[in-house]
Amino acid sequence: MPIPGKIAIMGGGSWATALAKLALNNADNILWYMRRDDRIADFKQTGHNPVYLSDVTFDTSRIHFSSDINEIADAADTLLLVTPSPYMKSHLKKLSADISKKFVVTAIKGIVPDENMIVTEYLQNFYHVPESHLAVIGGPCHAEEVALERLSYLTIGCNDLQKARSFADILASPKLKTIISSDVKGIEYSAVLKNVYAIAAGICHGMKSGDNFQAMLVSNALNEMDRFLQAVSPCRDRNISDSVYLGDLLVTAYSRFSRNHNFGSMIGRGYSVSAAKMEMEMIAEGYFGTKCIYEINERYKVNMPILQCVYDILYKKVLPRHAIESIYDTFL
Amino acid sequence: MPIPGKIAIMGGGSWATALAKLALNNADNILWYMRRDDRIADFKQTGHNPVYLSDVTFDTSRIHFSSDINEIADAADTLLLVTPSPYMKSHLKKLSADISKKFVVTAIKGIVPDENMIVTEYLQNFYHVPESHLAVIGGPCHAEEVALERLSYLTIGCNDLQKARSFADILASPKLKTIISSDVKGIEYSAVLKNVYAIAAGICHGMKSGDNFQAMLVSNALNEMDRFLQAVSPCRDRNISDSVYLGDLLVTAYSRFSRNHNFGSMIGRGYSVSAAKMEMEMIAEGYFGTKCIYEINERYKVNMPILQCVYDILYKKVLPRHAIESIYDTFL
Repeated sequence: MPIPGKIAIMGGGSWATALAKLALNNADNILWYMRRDDRIADFKQTGHNPVYLSDVTFDTSRIHFSSDINEIADAADTLLLVTPSPYMKSHLKKLSADISKKFVVTAIKGIVPDENMIVTEYLQNFYHVPESHLAVIGGPCHAEEVALERLSYLTIGCNDLQKARSFADILASPKLKTIISSDVKGIEYSAVLKNVYAIAAGICHGMKSGDNFQAMLVSNALNEMDRFLQAVSPCRDRNISDSVYLGDLLVTAYSRFSRNHNFGSMIGRGYSVSAAKMEMEMIAEGYFGTKCIYEINERYKVNMPILQCVYDILYKKVLPRHAIESIYDTFL
Repeated sequence: MPIPGKIAIMGGGSWATALAKLALNNADNILWYMRRDDRIADFKQTGHNPVYLSDVTFDTSRIHFSSDINEIADAADTLLLVTPSPYMKSHLKKLSADISKKFVVTAIKGIVPDENMIVTEYLQNFYHVPESHLAVIGGPCHAEEVALERLSYLTIGCNDLQKARSFADILASPKLKTIISSDVKGIEYSAVLKNVYAIAAGICHGMKSGDNFQAMLVSNALNEMDRFLQAVSPCRDRNISDSVYLGDLLVTAYSRFSRNHNFGSMIGRGYSVSAAKMEMEMIAEGYFGTKCIYEINERYKVNMPILQCVYDILYKKVLPRHAIESIYDTFL
């Protein structure tokens, strides 16, 4: 299995578009699966993604597009999965090609719906991809900032660090630095948890709790994340202050552009959860993430007061004021 | 030595005023040293500090004011030092009273000018206060937010945790939670370093480096801080993600109100260092902190690329763009 060999981008959103652009900096050509033929036709005609990051232009002669997931999966050595997590299962259902010998990289943030599993776990269990063929892309990195060619960083996680490096080198450029890590599960879970904490930060922001409280919340969230990761995936070398954990949490929790932060902020300002959901074009990922992690943690029973607080607000109709009060005394 | 016994506030600024208010929540009365008699007279007449946090009113019958530092020091059991670090030495020069048997708490942020020493070290060396009588107050906590009665947190560090708790209890209230720690030196050094990193964050903000880069910077700064603290004051129990380190760094690095952040931001936007200094009413503490830590680190030689970058910009006339570029590849 050559790594990366032939790379296939599996998805048509803004993150997929940014990663495709990065890959084409170093790869001669790529494969690209998109669900909709009309979008592929528009892309070919205009030289850019018709819906996302439309300022980013492509030499389409170097891209083989197809809406046939099996054709693309068969032809590729490396599959880069980059659909929103809620749609992942429906895409993969169409997959009859054997991907167990491919190198499969997930850039999907979130948990597989209904399964309460992170994506690599799902791929191992249902698609028989061995752990050593699985990798994950972690932040802090936004599609928009990559497109603007602002200096950005990506972490590539794979339990085989050599494979991580080989794949990372394909994405790297003077404006895109890559870091490698062996902590695949930790990176995946932290990407889910950061959205939960971004909702918490949004709630406190909406309640006007102030900068100091926000800082207390984020540092305690980081420690809570560390406890959870150590329980679900013990790792001696994990340094929770590394950018893939802390940096990504900071971008999400402090950014006014984060959907999760905005969702929380509405709730903090007095919107009911259902009203806040209706106001948003797309439900914030942390809404689902909160429930998933809560349920997973029923097995591990890690002390997670911030998760509990967000869960109580989102799913138990506890008033934000009361729920937030319950964490006051837990902070260190 | 009863702790806290009679408490003396040593200083007249906004942080001194906020701490005095907190102490009076639990103590019947306090002593208060202020340098200027006219301010004391105004304070007594109006019932509030004439210059700082003037919305905060006091029952002045419970305060014994004096501009005689020796009178106050003699009468007190606990001295709470809370002057800006550049003025600390000139205040203490007037001190002839023996304070070696007092409990001395420093809320001074910064390094003692000329000495390149943190405050507790200076008090040990020059005033013979034993380590077990020394404590430090750490954040994240702003005078303004305490005054607004927003929920805030303080960490009290003392190598005798029982003393830390006794003193902490005097400041605690439903709106002010206290945390105790034995890491006195780590808290003091981190309070200096956070200002250095806030300047770095300001520079990047001024250069419009983007949210992701900011998050990378802050997480790498935290790791750099950890390395430095482990070198100057090794401590097995220190968790750098705790709020007294990370939370305080976040408040300073992300706050648009921080002097250090603003100072850096001007430099990032193209002001020369001297022009930025002139624009500011009071020179940002991190300006001095950068040089102090840089010089201290000549002994320890800890790998500190962000400190080096800020030092090069502030003291070596290196262009921000070039200096910041030098840290791109050091980030993890």
